[in-house]
Amino acid sequence: MTTVYGFSTSGNCHKVRLLLEQLGREYAWIEVDSSKGETRTPEYLSKNPNGRVPMIELDDGRILTESNAILCWLAEGTPYDPDDSWQRAQALSWMFFEQYSHEPYIAVARFIRGWTALDSPRRNDLPTVQQRGYQALQVMEQHLSAAAWFTGPDYGVADIALFAYTDVAADGGFDLAAYPALREWLARVRATPGFVAMPAPSAEAAGRLAHPETQP
Amino acid sequence: MTTVYGFSTSGNCHKVRLLLEQLGREYAWIEVDSSKGETRTPEYLSKNPNGRVPMIELDDGRILTESNAILCWLAEGTPYDPDDSWQRAQALSWMFFEQYSHEPYIAVARFIRGWTALDSPRRNDLPTVQQRGYQALQVMEQHLSAAAWFTGPDYGVADIALFAYTDVAADGGFDLAAYPALREWLARVRATPGFVAMPAPSAEAAGRLAHPETQP
Repeated sequence: MTTVYGFSTSGNCHKVRLLLEQLGREYAWIEVDSSKGETRTPEYLSKNPNGRVPMIELDDGRILTESNAILCWLAEGTPYDPDDSWQRAQALSWMFFEQYSHEPYIAVARFIRGWTALDSPRRNDLPTVQQRGYQALQVMEQHLSAAAWFTGPDYGVADIALFAYTDVAADGGFDLAAYPALREWLARVRATPGFVAMPAPSAEAAGRLAHPETQP
Repeated sequence: MTTVYGFSTSGNCHKVRLLLEQLGREYAWIEVDSSKGETRTPEYLSKNPNGRVPMIELDDGRILTESNAILCWLAEGTPYDPDDSWQRAQALSWMFFEQYSHEPYIAVARFIRGWTALDSPRRNDLPTVQQRGYQALQVMEQHLSAAAWFTGPDYGVADIALFAYTDVAADGGFDLAAYPALREWLARVRATPGFVAMPAPSAEAAGRLAHPETQP
Protein backbone atom coordinates (compact mmCIF):
# COMPACT_ATOMS: atom_id res chain seq x y z
CA MET A 1 0.00 0.00 0.00
CA THR A 2 1.20 3.52 -0.79
CA THR A 3 1.84 5.84 2.14
CA VAL A 4 1.43 9.55 1.43
CA TYR A 5 3.20 12.10 3.61
CA GLY A 6 1.21 15.27 3.10
CA PHE A 7 -0.22 18.47 4.54
CA SER A 8 -3.94 18.17 3.80
CA THR A 9 -4.54 21.86 3.05
CA SER A 10 -1.59 22.08 0.61
CA GLY A 11 -2.69 21.96 -3.00
CA ASN A 12 0.48 20.11 -3.97
CA CYS A 13 -0.47 17.38 -1.50
CA HIS A 14 -4.14 17.39 -2.38
CA LYS A 15 -3.23 16.55 -5.98
CA VAL A 16 -2.01 13.15 -4.78
CA ARG A 17 -5.07 12.49 -2.63
CA LEU A 18 -7.42 13.47 -5.46
CA LEU A 19 -5.80 11.11 -7.97
CA LEU A 20 -5.60 8.22 -5.47
CA GLU A 21 -9.30 8.68 -4.66
CA GLN A 22 -10.23 8.82 -8.34
CA LEU A 23 -8.17 5.70 -9.04
CA GLY A 24 -9.90 3.95 -6.13
CA ARG A 25 -6.54 2.98 -4.66
CA GLU A 26 -6.02 2.23 -1.00
CA TYR A 27 -3.46 4.45 0.69
CA ALA A 28 -2.33 5.57 4.11
CA TRP A 29 -2.02 9.31 4.79
CA ILE A 30 0.47 10.64 7.31
CA GLU A 31 -0.22 14.29 8.11
CA VAL A 32 2.94 16.43 8.00
CA ASP A 33 2.37 20.11 8.77
CA SER A 34 5.00 21.86 6.67
CA SER A 35 3.85 25.22 8.07
CA LYS A 36 5.07 24.07 11.51
CA GLY A 37 8.49 22.76 10.44
CA GLU A 38 7.51 19.09 10.32
CA THR A 39 9.30 18.63 6.96
CA ARG A 40 12.56 19.85 8.52
CA THR A 41 12.99 17.17 11.19
CA PRO A 42 16.02 14.86 10.86
CA GLU A 43 13.67 11.89 10.35
CA TYR A 44 11.79 13.57 7.52
CA LEU A 45 14.94 14.92 5.88
CA SER A 46 16.40 11.40 5.92
CA LYS A 47 13.57 10.40 3.57
CA ASN A 48 13.42 13.64 1.54
CA PRO A 49 16.55 15.81 1.79
CA ASN A 50 14.68 18.63 0.00
CA GLY A 51 12.31 18.85 2.97
CA ARG A 52 9.01 19.20 1.13
CA VAL A 53 5.63 17.51 0.95
CA PRO A 54 4.10 15.54 -0.67
CA MET A 55 6.20 12.40 -0.66
CA ILE A 56 5.09 8.81 -1.17
CA GLU A 57 6.65 5.70 0.33
CA LEU A 58 6.08 2.19 -0.96
CA ASP A 59 5.94 -0.90 1.25
CA ASP A 60 9.53 -1.74 0.40
CA GLY A 61 10.69 1.70 1.58
CA ARG A 62 11.18 3.27 -1.84
CA ILE A 63 10.48 7.03 -1.87
CA LEU A 64 9.15 9.35 -4.57
CA THR A 65 8.95 13.13 -4.19
CA GLU A 66 7.57 16.08 -6.21
CA SER A 67 3.79 16.21 -6.57
CA ASN A 68 3.69 16.13 -10.35
CA ALA A 69 6.19 13.27 -10.66
CA ILE A 70 4.02 11.35 -8.19
CA LEU A 71 0.92 12.05 -10.30
CA CYS A 72 2.66 10.78 -13.45
CA TRP A 73 3.82 7.62 -11.74
CA LEU A 74 0.46 6.83 -10.14
CA ALA A 75 -1.43 7.54 -13.37
CA GLU A 76 0.76 5.48 -15.67
CA GLY A 77 -1.35 3.06 -17.67
CA THR A 78 -4.62 4.55 -16.41
CA PRO A 79 -7.08 6.82 -18.27
CA TYR A 80 -5.64 9.80 -16.33
CA ASP A 81 -2.39 9.62 -18.34
CA PRO A 82 -2.54 10.17 -22.13
CA ASP A 83 -1.66 7.15 -24.29
CA ASP A 84 -0.30 9.25 -27.09
CA SER A 85 3.33 10.32 -26.80
CA TRP A 86 2.82 13.87 -28.09
CA GLN A 87 -0.24 14.37 -25.90
CA ARG A 88 1.68 13.11 -22.86
CA ALA A 89 4.38 15.70 -23.65
CA GLN A 90 1.72 18.42 -23.77
CA ALA A 91 0.33 17.30 -20.39
CA LEU A 92 3.85 17.34 -18.98
CA SER A 93 4.38 20.81 -20.41
CA TRP A 94 1.33 22.06 -18.50
CA MET A 95 2.62 20.38 -15.34
CA PHE A 96 5.95 22.21 -15.65
CA PHE A 97 3.99 25.42 -16.36
CA GLU A 98 2.09 24.77 -13.14
CA GLN A 99 5.22 24.42 -11.02
CA TYR A 100 7.14 27.32 -12.61
CA SER A 101 4.59 29.93 -13.72
CA HIS A 102 1.49 29.18 -11.60
CA GLU A 103 2.19 27.61 -8.18
CA PRO A 104 4.89 30.16 -7.16
CA TYR A 105 2.22 32.89 -7.50
CA ILE A 106 -1.26 31.37 -7.05
CA ALA A 107 -0.20 29.10 -4.17
CA VAL A 108 2.31 31.51 -2.65
CA ALA A 109 -0.25 34.36 -2.48
CA ARG A 110 -2.56 31.99 -0.59
CA PHE A 111 0.26 30.91 1.72
CA ILE A 112 1.23 34.50 2.49
CA ARG A 113 -2.38 35.49 3.21
CA GLY A 114 -3.28 32.44 5.29
CA TRP A 115 -0.10 31.11 6.80
CA THR A 116 2.03 34.15 7.69
CA ALA A 117 1.44 36.65 10.51
CA LEU A 118 -0.78 39.63 9.70
CA ASP A 119 2.27 41.90 10.10
CA SER A 120 4.68 39.67 8.14
CA PRO A 121 6.97 41.60 5.77
CA ARG A 122 6.21 38.91 3.17
CA ARG A 123 2.82 40.55 2.72
CA ASN A 124 4.64 43.35 0.86
CA ASP A 125 5.27 40.81 -1.91
CA LEU A 126 1.56 40.25 -2.52
CA PRO A 127 0.97 42.80 -5.32
CA THR A 128 3.84 41.40 -7.42
CA VAL A 129 2.93 37.79 -6.67
CA GLN A 130 -0.72 38.44 -7.56
CA GLN A 131 0.16 40.21 -10.81
CA ARG A 132 2.15 37.18 -11.94
CA GLY A 133 -0.61 34.85 -10.79
CA TYR A 134 -3.09 36.68 -13.01
CA GLN A 135 -0.69 36.19 -15.95
CA ALA A 136 -0.84 32.42 -15.35
CA LEU A 137 -4.65 32.49 -15.11
CA GLN A 138 -4.77 34.38 -18.41
CA VAL A 139 -2.66 31.71 -20.14
CA MET A 140 -5.01 29.04 -18.77
CA GLU A 141 -8.11 31.00 -19.86
CA GLN A 142 -6.73 31.29 -23.39
CA HIS A 143 -6.11 27.53 -23.58
CA LEU A 144 -9.59 26.77 -22.25
CA SER A 145 -11.23 29.00 -24.84
CA ALA A 146 -10.41 26.24 -27.35
CA ALA A 147 -10.05 23.08 -25.25
CA ALA A 148 -11.97 21.33 -22.48
CA TRP A 149 -8.97 19.95 -20.60
CA PHE A 150 -5.23 20.47 -20.10
CA THR A 151 -4.25 16.80 -20.18
CA GLY A 152 -5.63 16.11 -23.65
CA PRO A 153 -9.04 15.09 -25.05
CA ASP A 154 -9.86 13.78 -21.57
CA TYR A 155 -9.42 14.87 -17.95
CA GLY A 156 -6.20 13.69 -16.30
CA VAL A 157 -2.94 14.47 -14.55
CA ALA A 158 -2.37 17.99 -15.90
CA ASP A 159 -5.91 18.99 -14.90
CA ILE A 160 -5.35 17.63 -11.40
CA ALA A 161 -2.05 19.52 -11.14
CA LEU A 162 -3.57 22.83 -12.26
CA PHE A 163 -6.88 22.42 -10.42
CA ALA A 164 -5.41 22.07 -6.94
CA TYR A 165 -4.44 25.69 -6.34
CA THR A 166 -6.68 27.30 -8.99
CA ASP A 167 -9.74 26.02 -7.11
CA VAL A 168 -8.63 27.93 -4.00
CA ALA A 169 -7.24 30.97 -5.85
CA ALA A 170 -9.70 33.19 -3.96
CA ASP A 171 -7.67 32.41 -0.81
CA GLY A 172 -4.76 34.19 -2.52
CA GLY A 173 -6.94 37.20 -3.24
CA PHE A 174 -7.60 36.30 -6.88
CA ASP A 175 -10.93 37.22 -8.45
CA LEU A 176 -11.90 34.76 -11.20
CA ALA A 177 -14.85 36.84 -12.48
CA ALA A 178 -12.97 37.76 -15.67
CA TYR A 179 -12.09 34.12 -16.43
CA PRO A 180 -15.34 32.38 -17.47
CA ALA A 181 -13.71 29.43 -19.26
CA LEU A 182 -11.56 28.82 -16.20
CA ARG A 183 -14.60 28.80 -13.91
CA GLU A 184 -16.38 26.34 -16.20
CA TRP A 185 -13.32 24.08 -16.22
CA LEU A 186 -13.17 24.16 -12.40
CA ALA A 187 -16.81 23.05 -12.34
CA ARG A 188 -16.08 20.26 -14.85
CA VAL A 189 -13.21 18.99 -12.67
CA ARG A 190 -15.42 19.06 -9.55
CA ALA A 191 -17.95 16.89 -11.46
CA THR A 192 -15.45 14.14 -12.38
CA PRO A 193 -16.08 10.69 -10.86
CA GLY A 194 -14.55 10.22 -7.42
CA PHE A 195 -13.74 13.89 -7.00
CA VAL A 196 -12.87 14.99 -3.45
CA ALA A 197 -12.42 18.60 -2.38
CA MET A 198 -9.41 19.82 -0.41
CA PRO A 199 -10.09 19.96 3.36
CA ALA A 200 -10.74 23.42 4.79
CA PRO A 201 -7.77 25.27 6.30
CA SER A 202 -7.30 25.33 10.07
CA ALA A 203 -9.32 27.89 12.04
CA GLU A 204 -6.15 29.95 12.47
CA ALA A 205 -5.45 30.07 8.71
CA ALA A 206 -9.13 30.58 7.87
CA GLY A 207 -9.21 33.52 10.27
CA ARG A 208 -6.26 35.16 8.54
CA LEU A 209 -7.74 34.51 5.08
CA ALA A 210 -10.98 36.21 6.15
CA HIS A 211 -9.27 39.14 7.87
CA PRO A 212 -10.03 42.49 6.18
CA GLU A 213 -6.39 43.57 6.47
CA THR A 214 -5.33 40.67 4.29
CA GLN A 215 -7.60 41.66 1.41
CA PRO A 216 -5.84 42.80 -1.76
CA MET B 1 12.92 18.71 -38.86
CA THR B 2 12.51 20.21 -35.41
CA THR B 3 12.85 23.97 -35.10
CA VAL B 4 14.04 25.25 -31.74
CA TYR B 5 13.24 28.79 -30.66
CA GLY B 6 15.85 29.56 -28.04
CA PHE B 7 18.18 32.09 -26.43
CA SER B 8 21.59 30.43 -26.74
CA THR B 9 22.96 31.60 -23.39
CA SER B 10 19.87 30.45 -21.45
CA GLY B 11 20.43 27.18 -19.64
CA ASN B 12 16.81 26.17 -20.20
CA CYS B 13 17.38 26.53 -23.95
CA HIS B 14 20.80 24.93 -23.91
CA LYS B 15 19.27 21.77 -22.44
CA VAL B 16 17.41 21.25 -25.72
CA ARG B 17 20.47 21.93 -27.87
CA LEU B 18 22.61 19.56 -25.78
CA LEU B 19 20.15 16.66 -26.08
CA LEU B 20 19.58 17.22 -29.82
CA GLU B 21 23.36 17.22 -30.38
CA GLN B 22 23.80 14.07 -28.31
CA LEU B 23 20.98 12.36 -30.20
CA GLY B 24 22.60 13.39 -33.47
CA ARG B 25 19.33 14.90 -34.67
CA GLU B 26 19.11 17.61 -37.28
CA TYR B 27 17.42 20.77 -36.10
CA ALA B 28 17.04 24.43 -36.97
CA TRP B 29 17.74 27.02 -34.26
CA ILE B 30 15.98 30.38 -34.29
CA GLU B 31 17.64 32.78 -31.86
CA VAL B 32 15.10 34.59 -29.64
CA ASP B 33 16.64 37.03 -27.15
CA SER B 34 14.26 36.85 -24.20
CA SER B 35 16.36 39.50 -22.40
CA LYS B 36 15.36 41.99 -25.11
CA GLY B 37 11.61 41.26 -25.14
CA GLU B 38 11.66 38.98 -28.19
CA THR B 39 9.39 36.44 -26.44
CA ARG B 40 6.75 39.14 -25.90
CA THR B 41 6.02 40.02 -29.54
CA PRO B 42 2.51 39.26 -30.85
CA GLU B 43 3.99 36.73 -33.28
CA TYR B 44 5.84 34.84 -30.55
CA LEU B 45 2.91 34.97 -28.12
CA SER B 46 0.67 33.51 -30.82
CA LYS B 47 2.84 30.38 -30.68
CA ASN B 48 3.50 30.40 -26.91
CA PRO B 49 1.06 32.50 -24.86
CA ASN B 50 3.31 32.07 -21.81
CA GLY B 51 6.04 34.03 -23.63
CA ARG B 52 9.05 31.92 -22.72
CA VAL B 53 11.87 30.06 -24.42
CA PRO B 54 12.66 27.33 -25.32
CA MET B 55 9.87 26.21 -27.62
CA ILE B 56 10.01 23.62 -30.40
CA GLU B 57 7.96 23.60 -33.57
CA LEU B 58 7.48 20.56 -35.78
CA ASP B 59 7.16 20.70 -39.56
CA ASP B 60 3.38 20.41 -39.30
CA GLY B 61 3.26 23.48 -37.02
CA ARG B 62 2.73 21.64 -33.74
CA ILE B 63 4.31 23.42 -30.75
CA LEU B 64 5.79 22.13 -27.50
CA THR B 65 6.95 24.39 -24.66
CA GLU B 66 8.74 23.94 -21.30
CA SER B 67 12.35 22.82 -21.48
CA ASN B 68 11.95 19.66 -19.41
CA ALA B 69 8.81 18.51 -21.25
CA ILE B 70 10.75 19.00 -24.50
CA LEU B 71 13.63 16.88 -23.13
CA CYS B 72 11.25 14.07 -22.16
CA TRP B 73 9.57 14.08 -25.55
CA LEU B 74 12.82 14.15 -27.53
CA ALA B 75 14.39 11.45 -25.37
CA GLU B 76 11.48 9.01 -25.46
CA GLY B 77 12.68 5.59 -26.56
CA THR B 78 16.35 6.61 -26.51
CA PRO B 79 19.01 5.71 -23.91
CA TYR B 80 18.61 9.20 -22.40
CA ASP B 81 15.18 8.25 -21.00
CA PRO B 82 14.97 5.42 -18.42
CA ASP B 83 13.12 2.28 -19.55
CA ASP B 84 11.96 1.44 -16.07
CA SER B 85 8.76 3.11 -14.91
CA TRP B 86 9.94 3.80 -11.34
CA GLN B 87 13.28 5.11 -12.56
CA ARG B 88 11.53 7.38 -15.06
CA ALA B 89 9.45 8.76 -12.17
CA GLN B 90 12.66 9.46 -10.23
CA ALA B 91 14.16 11.28 -13.24
CA LEU B 92 10.96 13.30 -13.55
CA SER B 93 11.11 14.10 -9.83
CA TRP B 94 14.60 15.58 -10.30
CA MET B 95 13.35 17.58 -13.28
CA PHE B 96 10.56 19.09 -11.19
CA PHE B 97 13.11 19.73 -8.42
CA GLU B 98 15.20 21.55 -11.02
CA GLN B 99 12.38 23.86 -12.10
CA TYR B 100 11.04 24.54 -8.59
CA SER B 101 13.98 24.41 -6.17
CA HIS B 102 17.04 24.98 -8.37
CA GLU B 103 16.44 27.11 -11.48
CA PRO B 104 14.59 29.93 -9.64
CA TYR B 105 17.77 30.46 -7.57
CA ILE B 106 20.80 29.20 -9.52
CA ALA B 107 19.60 30.60 -12.85
CA VAL B 108 17.97 33.71 -11.44
CA ALA B 109 21.14 34.73 -9.54
CA ARG B 110 23.04 34.46 -12.84
CA PHE B 111 20.36 36.46 -14.66
CA ILE B 112 20.40 39.21 -12.05
CA ARG B 113 24.21 39.45 -12.10
CA GLY B 114 24.60 39.32 -15.88
CA TRP B 115 21.42 40.61 -17.43
CA THR B 116 20.20 43.45 -15.17
CA ALA B 117 21.74 46.93 -14.81
CA LEU B 118 24.48 47.31 -12.23
CA ASP B 119 22.16 49.57 -10.20
CA SER B 120 19.05 47.37 -10.59
CA PRO B 121 17.02 47.01 -7.37
CA ARG B 122 16.76 43.30 -8.19
CA ARG B 123 20.37 42.99 -7.03
CA ASN B 124 19.06 43.38 -3.47
CA ASP B 125 17.48 39.94 -3.89
CA LEU B 126 20.83 38.25 -4.50
CA PRO B 127 21.65 37.18 -0.90
CA THR B 128 18.29 35.41 -0.48
CA VAL B 129 18.39 33.89 -3.96
CA GLN B 130 21.95 32.64 -3.40
CA GLN B 131 21.10 31.13 -0.01
CA ARG B 132 18.31 29.08 -1.57
CA GLY B 133 20.56 28.13 -4.47
CA TYR B 134 23.08 26.68 -2.05
CA GLN B 135 20.29 24.60 -0.48
CA ALA B 136 19.60 23.08 -3.90
CA LEU B 137 23.30 22.40 -4.47
CA GLN B 138 23.45 20.66 -1.08
CA VAL B 139 20.54 18.37 -2.02
CA MET B 140 22.34 17.51 -5.27
CA GLU B 141 25.66 16.90 -3.45
CA GLN B 142 23.96 14.50 -1.04
CA HIS B 143 22.41 12.52 -3.91
CA LEU B 144 25.74 12.37 -5.75
CA SER B 145 27.53 11.02 -2.67
CA ALA B 146 25.74 7.72 -3.39
CA ALA B 147 24.91 7.86 -7.12
CA ALA B 148 26.68 8.73 -10.36
CA TRP B 149 23.72 10.27 -12.16
CA PHE B 150 20.32 11.86 -11.54
CA THR B 151 18.48 10.09 -14.35
CA GLY B 152 19.18 6.56 -13.12
CA PRO B 153 22.03 4.07 -13.60
CA ASP B 154 22.95 6.02 -16.75
CA TYR B 155 23.26 9.63 -17.85
CA GLY B 156 20.11 11.15 -19.32
CA VAL B 157 17.38 13.77 -19.26
CA ALA B 158 17.51 14.66 -15.55
CA ASP B 159 21.28 15.14 -15.76
CA ILE B 160 20.87 17.41 -18.77
CA ALA B 161 18.18 19.41 -16.95
CA LEU B 162 20.30 19.89 -13.83
CA PHE B 163 23.61 20.36 -15.63
CA ALA B 164 22.58 23.37 -17.68
CA TYR B 165 22.59 26.01 -14.94
CA THR B 166 24.79 24.15 -12.44
CA ASP B 167 27.66 24.28 -14.93
CA VAL B 168 27.46 28.09 -14.99
CA ALA B 169 26.60 28.50 -11.30
CA ALA B 170 29.75 30.63 -10.87
CA ASP B 171 28.01 33.27 -13.03
CA GLY B 172 25.44 33.52 -10.24
CA GLY B 173 28.18 33.99 -7.65
CA PHE B 174 28.12 30.39 -6.41
CA ASP B 175 31.35 28.78 -5.19
CA LEU B 176 31.33 25.00 -5.78
CA ALA B 177 34.50 24.35 -3.73
CA ALA B 178 32.49 22.70 -0.93
CA TYR B 179 30.68 20.36 -3.37
CA PRO B 180 33.25 17.82 -4.60
CA ALA B 181 30.74 15.20 -5.79
CA LEU B 182 28.92 17.89 -7.75
CA ARG B 183 32.14 19.01 -9.45
CA GLU B 184 32.97 15.41 -10.39
CA TRP B 185 29.46 14.95 -11.82
CA LEU B 186 29.83 18.14 -13.89
CA ALA B 187 33.08 16.72 -15.30
CA ARG B 188 31.37 13.39 -16.07
CA VAL B 189 28.60 15.19 -17.96
CA ARG B 190 31.14 17.23 -19.95
CA ALA B 191 32.79 13.93 -20.97
CA THR B 192 29.61 12.33 -22.36
CA PRO B 193 29.57 11.60 -26.12
CA GLY B 194 28.43 14.52 -28.25
CA PHE B 195 28.60 17.01 -25.39
CA VAL B 196 28.47 20.68 -26.39
CA ALA B 197 29.05 23.57 -24.00
CA MET B 198 26.71 26.54 -23.74
CA PRO B 199 27.89 29.52 -25.84
CA ALA B 200 29.54 32.37 -23.92
CA PRO B 201 27.31 35.28 -22.87
CA SER B 202 27.36 38.50 -24.89
CA ALA B 203 30.18 40.98 -24.18
CA GLU B 204 27.68 43.16 -22.33
CA ALA B 205 26.55 40.33 -20.02
CA ALA B 206 30.12 39.04 -19.60
CA GLY B 207 31.21 42.53 -18.57
CA ARG B 208 28.54 42.69 -15.88
CA LEU B 209 29.36 39.18 -14.66
CA ALA B 210 33.03 40.17 -14.28
CA HIS B 211 32.29 43.52 -12.65
CA PRO B 212 33.63 43.75 -9.08
CA GLU B 213 30.42 45.41 -7.87
CA THR B 214 28.43 42.37 -8.88
CA GLN B 215 30.49 40.03 -6.76
CA PRO B 216 28.66 38.44 -3.84
